[in-house]
Amino acid sequence: MSAIYLPEDRYFNPACKEVALHLYGQVKHLPLVCPHGHVDPRLFSDPNYQFGTPTELFIIPDHYIFRMLYAQGIALEDLGVPRADGGPVEQDHRKIWQIFADNFYLFRGTPTGSWLNYSFYNVFAVQEKLTGDSAQAIYDQIADQLARPSFRPRALFDQFNVEVLTTTDAATDSLEHHRAIQESGWSGRILPTFRPDAVVNLDAPGWRQNLQALGERVGKAITSYKTFIEALENRRAFFRSMGATATDHAALTPYTTELNDQEAETIFQRALRGEASPDDAARFTGHMLMQMARMSVEDGLVMQLHVGSFRNHNSQMFERFGVDKGADIPVQTEYTRNLLPLLNRYGTDPRFSLILFTLDETSYGRELAPLAGHYPAVRLGPPWWFYDSLNGMAYFFDKVMETAGIYNTAGFNDDTRAFMSIPARHDVWRRAAANWVASLQVRGMIDMDDAEAMIHDLAYGLAKKAYKFA
Amino acid sequence: MSAIYLPEDRYFNPACKEVALHLYGQVKHLPLVCPHGHVDPRLFSDPNYQFGTPTELFIIPDHYIFRMLYAQGIALEDLGVPRADGGPVEQDHRKIWQIFADNFYLFRGTPTGSWLNYSFYNVFAVQEKLTGDSAQAIYDQIADQLARPSFRPRALFDQFNVEVLTTTDAATDSLEHHRAIQESGWSGRILPTFRPDAVVNLDAPGWRQNLQALGERVGKAITSYKTFIEALENRRAFFRSMGATATDHAALTPYTTELNDQEAETIFQRALRGEASPDDAARFTGHMLMQMARMSVEDGLVMQLHVGSFRNHNSQMFERFGVDKGADIPVQTEYTRNLLPLLNRYGTDPRFSLILFTLDETSYGRELAPLAGHYPAVRLGPPWWFYDSLNGMAYFFDKVMETAGIYNTAGFNDDTRAFMSIPARHDVWRRAAANWVASLQVRGMIDMDDAEAMIHDLAYGLAKKAYKFA
Amino acid sequence: MSAIYLPEDRYFNPACKEVALHLYGQVKHLPLVCPHGHVDPRLFSDPNYQFGTPTELFIIPDHYIFRMLYAQGIALEDLGVPRADGGPVEQDHRKIWQIFADNFYLFRGTPTGSWLNYSFYNVFAVQEKLTGDSAQAIYDQIADQLARPSFRPRALFDQFNVEVLTTTDAATDSLEHHRAIQESGWSGRILPTFRPDAVVNLDAPGWRQNLQALGERVGKAITSYKTFIEALENRRAFFRSMGATATDHAALTPYTTELNDQEAETIFQRALRGEASPDDAARFTGHMLMQMARMSVEDGLVMQLHVGSFRNHNSQMFERFGVDKGADIPVQTEYTRNLLPLLNRYGTDPRFSLILFTLDETSYGRELAPLAGHYPAVRLGPPWWFYDSLNGMAYFFDKVMETAGIYNTAGFNDDTRAFMSIPARHDVWRRAAANWVASLQVRGMIDMDDAEAMIHDLAYGLAKKAYKFA
Repeated sequence: MSAIYLPEDRYFNPACKEVALHLYGQVKHLPLVCPHGHVDPRLFSDPNYQFGTPTELFIIPDHYIFRMLYAQGIALEDLGVPRADGGPVEQDHRKIWQIFADNFYLFRGTPTGSWLNYSFYNVFAVQEKLTGDSAQAIYDQIADQLARPSFRPRALFDQFNVEVLTTTDAATDSLEHHRAIQESGWSGRILPTFRPDAVVNLDAPGWRQNLQALGERVGKAITSYKTFIEALENRRAFFRSMGATATDHAALTPYTTELNDQEAETIFQRALRGEASPDDAARFTGHMLMQMARMSVEDGLVMQLHVGSFRNHNSQMFERFGVDKGADIPVQTEYTRNLLPLLNRYGTDPRFSLILFTLDETSYGRELAPLAGHYPAVRLGPPWWFYDSLNGMAYFFDKVMETAGIYNTAGFNDDTRAFMSIPARHDVWRRAAANWVASLQVRGMIDMDDAEAMIHDLAYGLAKKAYKFA
Repeated sequence: MSAIYLPEDRYFNPACKEVALHLYGQVKHLPLVCPHGHVDPRLFSDPNYQFGTPTELFIIPDHYIFRMLYAQGIALEDLGVPRADGGPVEQDHRKIWQIFADNFYLFRGTPTGSWLNYSFYNVFAVQEKLTGDSAQAIYDQIADQLARPSFRPRALFDQFNVEVLTTTDAATDSLEHHRAIQESGWSGRILPTFRPDAVVNLDAPGWRQNLQALGERVGKAITSYKTFIEALENRRAFFRSMGATATDHAALTPYTTELNDQEAETIFQRALRGEASPDDAARFTGHMLMQMARMSVEDGLVMQLHVGSFRNHNSQMFERFGVDKGADIPVQTEYTRNLLPLLNRYGTDPRFSLILFTLDETSYGRELAPLAGHYPAVRLGPPWWFYDSLNGMAYFFDKVMETAGIYNTAGFNDDTRAFMSIPARHDVWRRAAANWVASLQVRGMIDMDDAEAMIHDLAYGLAKKAYKFA
Repeated sequence: MSAIYLPEDRYFNPACKEVALHLYGQVKHLPLVCPHGHVDPRLFSDPNYQFGTPTELFIIPDHYIFRMLYAQGIALEDLGVPRADGGPVEQDHRKIWQIFADNFYLFRGTPTGSWLNYSFYNVFAVQEKLTGDSAQAIYDQIADQLARPSFRPRALFDQFNVEVLTTTDAATDSLEHHRAIQESGWSGRILPTFRPDAVVNLDAPGWRQNLQALGERVGKAITSYKTFIEALENRRAFFRSMGATATDHAALTPYTTELNDQEAETIFQRALRGEASPDDAARFTGHMLMQMARMSVEDGLVMQLHVGSFRNHNSQMFERFGVDKGADIPVQTEYTRNLLPLLNRYGTDPRFSLILFTLDETSYGRELAPLAGHYPAVRLGPPWWFYDSLNGMAYFFDKVMETAGIYNTAGFNDDTRAFMSIPARHDVWRRAAANWVASLQVRGMIDMDDAEAMIHDLAYGLAKKAYKFA
């Protein structure tokens, strides 16, 4: 038997390990600030929510995990991933777990592997390394614990020391679960985030149905661009009343442009008739990003922009299993010219705050750090998705910080739907940040006072400030 | 006199040297698997092949070397590089060697410099550093050894411990040297690779002559797209019968598209008349990549794609000296959108295997690792050409492995026409891989069992599996 | 009170510190060669020039500094930056200095922060770290010293051990200050550089006025493309007679193209009438780069090309404060195809020398190193602007040197208008270079003899040779 290998001084470069451990020690017990993520609020609205089997918890819903097995030729059906048509998939969760364990070596040296080991060891007290041989015993051990009250989400929320956790919610969402949480008297702080992509992007699947749902939500049919804008303003006000401090927007590119009301109305009417062209959709999204910035100036919601993912690249998989199945592939992304209209209009407004994310690391030093190091409104979000990793973070620090300084960045966010992985992800960030700050300190670039101030801000303060958590 | 400096612990970071040496020690004597390269099969079909002078061996045919001298203003004529028109060039090989030695300092800190030093020291037992002063003595020493039977290619093949070596061969090649090797009873495994660029790319120099040669080879004039496809299928079958396990394809971009038969025929007929436009050529190449994938699904040959080189950038040099003279310059390369048609059609087929190479490192983390970490058919080839270097490998490991994992990569290939450099190149890879795995181990990301499994796969197992060498 | 932290072994990786210190020790006292920069020659033409207040010296003219404060919401008016309309801005220099000191923490871990600390400590003997508390005392200390004769520019020039310093001067510049310096009998070597962007780029602000000024300078109205070319040749000859060894050219892209005389004349005439289109301007600039190369072949001036900056991105700031206010943002830049016409025409001419700079690091390994490692005329300039930093240099060494070798690079230039920062910037380069060479040495890639030769060339020899300083 082999033990899970998680030495206390992990992820630190030997050359600065002593200082890194010192800095990490200063922040490892700080509360977790989680300003952007995808955890389902139902976990917390139902005080007795249970996670199901280990396979339901770790494998079936997590595309970080099953895409790696799929890449080696294992069918998603054999991993229990639900089909879009409801057709049969593997139902034996022990069998799925065995496949996962047999192939756990695929995650050697990957962030997913380290998150899993952290969760097994620190949350479930699993000592043994997951292999084909240890698979069923570990399944038993995790299943046994998941049945206990101490493994219900609210209990884990406290154990994980989460100070605030935000969800991501459609513009049409009732936020009933957030309301239930607030009314339950439980002290956990779970806040919504306004994400209107499904109604703002004319080419979103089911756009007209989404629009109808939005109309129902605001009690007024949306028949024009003008009523559309009013509905969005209405919903933003509702989200704010429910505690939201931010919005989030996804697009293939950060293209922005300003249409006049008549142009916007014309495109909107074409879309209502189902006649919008791809160019209409791109221009309308670019225009709506400007509108969202305008509304943020007015209502103070922090605007987040996540761009550069070519969604559902594998059409066979999309047809069979739907969205978010590990088939989204990044594309090169241009910010300097694309954001020019938006930044010229709102980038210097003291009421505006824009947090940028990228899947194109080449833009860090070339475009994003210079933009964040100039415009008062711009902050850079942490490494996203594939770059939420040790190397991704090290590269981010090296490429961004010299130009932007740390104070034009927005700290960390875990951006996960896997609640169980949250402590592991923050721990990687805190260690990576401690390692980076220590590498500056041991090379004589900053003194220890600055190092201690920086690690505190990176681990805790910057996220809290950027997202306006009082 | 200065000695050649090749310490046994070279290329390892001091911070993980002990572990790196341990891991390197586990693989340094493993056989060399050489699944992609450009060594001339004549070296092995003639049991008495001799390499000629040191200058003929090291300088005249090697654009890695003479381009560096050329960049400092030394004429290729003075280095004995043959002119396209057969005009006079320097014939005194000792004089050329002296120029090379006088300027050997240009290679300080370069991979070419380290390959040369490795070959001098390990193959020819040269102890002294190459300088203007030591030039002629070293020339003598190398020339003396080249005359010995132990320095004939077959003997070196055994001494280098090559398990299998593949060549790269035109679709029209008779493979007579491969046949001669097989019939000679020599045990060395030299396999062909099917590379049909010269007939598939309509803008290849001499396309119509190439097509005529193809027709002669298959015994049927190629007058239509249909007969063209049949001829390619015929040749692939022949290559397979000669032991080929892979094909190779070069293009400026990885653009793929599917033409219907009539479109393909129309373009093909225009090309036969010499009337194909650049756009025709680009679309036809994009279509033929799809056809090659289709044939790979059917016949099981692994498909390699090498893209992104702008060939013969220096037109004066091209006119005077021809192709492959160190004047090929990379261009930015896009994969996510370009490969969409091919991957949607064949990327999930369990019979298909596609190995991708790039000269644009920005695509590693952004596009290639996500593609390889998703599509069952895709594997990533090692750092290519300018990136076949310590930094190139370190960057590849850092950018690719967190997302793709090592098991979606294809190990190493030396991709060289310089047979003498093969052990040096594999040694750099094995050391770079050992250093990378050790850096994970000493930072607590993997235990030693995983580290040992990973170095074995990186040094040996992955290449063998990816290229289907039984 | 905290002391400024500048340990003698700063910026070196612990793993190679001993060797790095040895190498750095060999070059730290070498004279400074400053082949490209923006220091005002008036500093040296007037033997009694004084720098003004600490705020005038360090803050008001330096966009590296005030853009970081601006990015955090501090108005440029409050920092005393002059408005284009001459409107009121803060005049109390102590108050501005206090704001700067209160926010000095923003520069933690940035190159600007390290240059400032170096200047405070080494030039002004400030011991205490700049904070809100220490602000006024440090202001007093610097102001006191600035009043002394030993802090006049000529005295500092000697103290800084500058061997040669070049300025950057418009084609229309009289070079009267350079003449005054030469005629003063002072031994300092201050040379002009010919920078004709304002007349060559048709879309330059005030192009027609600039052209008129050029005509006046050469004593002949410029009414045609032909007279324009003659005027430029005339001015280049004048610059050469004043000691210039180089020209400098800025453009958004490195696009080059060759127009015939009639096309060039047609566009030029349109521009004279104020009717040139953006496309005209782009093509004319591309053509003029070819003309500048042609003139360099004829007169031997080294041609520098600085491309990739999108100027004055923030239009509100541009209208209020004008150019060079920290609002220039880089864009992605393509070299392989753009430079093809120029390099095919002049790239192999032994009389031509072209030094390339980039703001797009992705081009280092992919395009620039292969170009410099092939074309005899091409050399790579050092990391520029945002990349004039420890990480920028480390990345440059790692991406460029394996392919180009150090001998196809042009050493360092400080590219600064902040005279006081020159020693600090060279010191960072020398330390970064020593660290890189040491990292090769301790990893067994080069012996100590090579290491010592390389650090000398990087710190001193390469710049001197590339810019033809005898």
